[in-house]
Amino acid sequence: MGMRNIIVGQSGGPTSVINSSLAGVYKTAIERGFDKVYGMLHGIQGFLDEQYVDLSTQIHSDMDIELLKRTPSAFLGSCRYKLPEIHEDMEIYEKIFGILDKLEIEAFIYIGGNDSMDTIKKLSDYAIVKGHKQKFLGVPKTIDNDLALTDHTPGFGSAAKYIGASTKEVIRDALGLTYKKEMITIIEVMGRNAGWLTGATALAKTEECEGPDLIYLPEVPFDIDAFLSKIKDLLKEKKSIIVAVSEGIKLPDGRYVCELSGGGDYVDAFGHKQLTGTAAYLANFLGAEIGCKTRAVEFSTLQRSASHMASRVDINEAFMVGGAAVKAADEGDSGKMVVIDRVSDDPYMSAAGIYDVHKIANNEKTVPREWLNETADYVTEEFINYIEPLIQGDYPPFMVNGLPQHLVLKK
Amino acid sequence: MGMRNIIVGQSGGPTSVINSSLAGVYKTAIERGFDKVYGMLHGIQGFLDEQYVDLSTQIHSDMDIELLKRTPSAFLGSCRYKLPEIHEDMEIYEKIFGILDKLEIEAFIYIGGNDSMDTIKKLSDYAIVKGHKQKFLGVPKTIDNDLALTDHTPGFGSAAKYIGASTKEVIRDALGLTYKKEMITIIEVMGRNAGWLTGATALAKTEECEGPDLIYLPEVPFDIDAFLSKIKDLLKEKKSIIVAVSEGIKLPDGRYVCELSGGGDYVDAFGHKQLTGTAAYLANFLGAEIGCKTRAVEFSTLQRSASHMASRVDINEAFMVGGAAVKAADEGDSGKMVVIDRVSDDPYMSAAGIYDVHKIANNEKTVPREWLNETADYVTEEFINYIEPLIQGDYPPFMVNGLPQHLVLKK
Repeated sequence: MGMRNIIVGQSGGPTSVINSSLAGVYKTAIERGFDKVYGMLHGIQGFLDEQYVDLSTQIHSDMDIELLKRTPSAFLGSCRYKLPEIHEDMEIYEKIFGILDKLEIEAFIYIGGNDSMDTIKKLSDYAIVKGHKQKFLGVPKTIDNDLALTDHTPGFGSAAKYIGASTKEVIRDALGLTYKKEMITIIEVMGRNAGWLTGATALAKTEECEGPDLIYLPEVPFDIDAFLSKIKDLLKEKKSIIVAVSEGIKLPDGRYVCELSGGGDYVDAFGHKQLTGTAAYLANFLGAEIGCKTRAVEFSTLQRSASHMASRVDINEAFMVGGAAVKAADEGDSGKMVVIDRVSDDPYMSAAGIYDVHKIANNEKTVPREWLNETADYVTEEFINYIEPLIQGDYPPFMVNGLPQHLVLKK
Repeated sequence: MGMRNIIVGQSGGPTSVINSSLAGVYKTAIERGFDKVYGMLHGIQGFLDEQYVDLSTQIHSDMDIELLKRTPSAFLGSCRYKLPEIHEDMEIYEKIFGILDKLEIEAFIYIGGNDSMDTIKKLSDYAIVKGHKQKFLGVPKTIDNDLALTDHTPGFGSAAKYIGASTKEVIRDALGLTYKKEMITIIEVMGRNAGWLTGATALAKTEECEGPDLIYLPEVPFDIDAFLSKIKDLLKEKKSIIVAVSEGIKLPDGRYVCELSGGGDYVDAFGHKQLTGTAAYLANFLGAEIGCKTRAVEFSTLQRSASHMASRVDINEAFMVGGAAVKAADEGDSGKMVVIDRVSDDPYMSAAGIYDVHKIANNEKTVPREWLNETADYVTEEFINYIEPLIQGDYPPFMVNGLPQHLVLKK
């Protein structure tokens, strides 16, 4: 009898907890008696170049597992690589399965977002058609929370927690500086088509903080005249105005707001425009229209890699779904993604479920219209109630010489 | 016999620990038997409008003191307000001393940077000339670390710690994403004329992190051709290149780099240009020249208000200098600023000293040329040795419902 090996890869944009899922895969695979746990480097793209490591050469102890859980961004390296349709290029699939056979892989676990689930779907379809025995399982990961069928995605809670905490700090910063003169601060948050993270700025609304004044999600066309008029009204009441906008807000004619300032030129492999400059554009616009001081704050890549502000709920769920994927593969499932089911709200409890990946791939979950107020410039209490349990609890970094320590790949 | 009252104000840009100094002033004033501790709202500007509070209505317990120490940005509100020269406008001075007499103030403590020490100097000069008995003491505060005569400034260590931690996270984020294609990340850091914070990105260079590849401080003219050539050389060796630049880097002809992209229009009350867009300009420049993917990350206001990443050394020193100012005033000093003296490096120990404010005001301390390498694109080991003790130890926030809690002014 041959080896029982398993391989895991990471794909798409980084999160604070993508390595907690990797840790969950590794630990569960060892516990369930897999012989070797391989990690593909830079996802399926590196795998095609036969770039992989035996994870036992990287993770030596439970301490390493804990350090891995506190390390942001893909430990194994990520990729944005879309497999061709099966009928378009059989050779690439033959190559992949050739390597899988050579490594005696029983299960292939892929941690990623929408685009990565497309990879799981194609590989599991190919395996079924060609009679290969390998199992293909997806583990959800994205700060954007835009995956269908899962209550939420690992990575979202930690990004939301960082955004909530940083928004509180930005609000305090601005309040301290506004006495006689007004200042408008525009905070730009990630989320191309889904406003989950932008809405998370509302978490800053607490006992001792007013939170943002206006929140604009990409789900609803952005009316720049209504926006200007709202700002003018707010300036009658207060000196410091805080606005949160998604990087992906669009005008009614479909153009991104950031395109107005010349952004949006770069297009990635999946045809997504790279968005920057929405807050800067709006800050300049308001400065010119109103003549007051404005400021643009982009949370930029910090929001997806700030493992020093990770949510304990998120870290634990990321670990859980990694482990659940291994268990599912070991029990014979394939072509499926693990999901998080919300079992109860108060106390918050969740469990791992499993769904057919054909129902998930390339299907974006956006914020429902009814979770925005009527004028579409703030989120509702339902939105907050949904998100609040996901930011609870801390997972403090291991501090070495004053800074968070990470586990990194030894080559 | 009348009351023995004291008043404290905060001025200039926010820091993570400016309220720890306020806490030190308050606690020490109570301990030394002052009757009332007033807080002026929005510094001397609010004081002139008779905006102040009795701090005993705000701080009710040691728990409140601890919460105050964990609250970023001026609790009392700040200002950027420059007093006129005494001979230019006597009336404003008469007004100030009128209010001080009315409130039976013995000591006036001002927590701030260079511009704030100018206020202390003028008020103490006026008091001496006119025979007023009040004592005027300055407490240093600035993330920029640009105050002369003090070893370093409260606020700097916490900003440096946040910058070091965030730089590590940005580096990991970029590394995970670069496999076949190169990416250049430009990190923009605060510090108009002094590169202390930009240099702090070098703290990210640790056992498991290469740190930034290039660091450009504002102290040395920025040679854009040499920069481009360095980047091209680095691209021969590695895929992910990380560059840290100060917002204030200038071309040899004296123009700010950010001015090349149309930034630098807004000028504040002290004649300082508002700088933004240096990283964005350089990222676009490199993208156009080299044709690879680039990314600009601005730490923006997050770096000065991220009390969730405060350094314990910094918090404690900020508290200490606040207390030392009260003690000095109580013992009869005036026209002075408390400074931090470095007593030893290993183990790191510091103590509060005191200096004549005339030697400090409007005198910027920049990074010495010998703490940069020969090509002026990295900091030396001496720089690191100087900064490293200042980021040690944590001061974890009080988390309420998943987010850091702050103490805010009740009106």
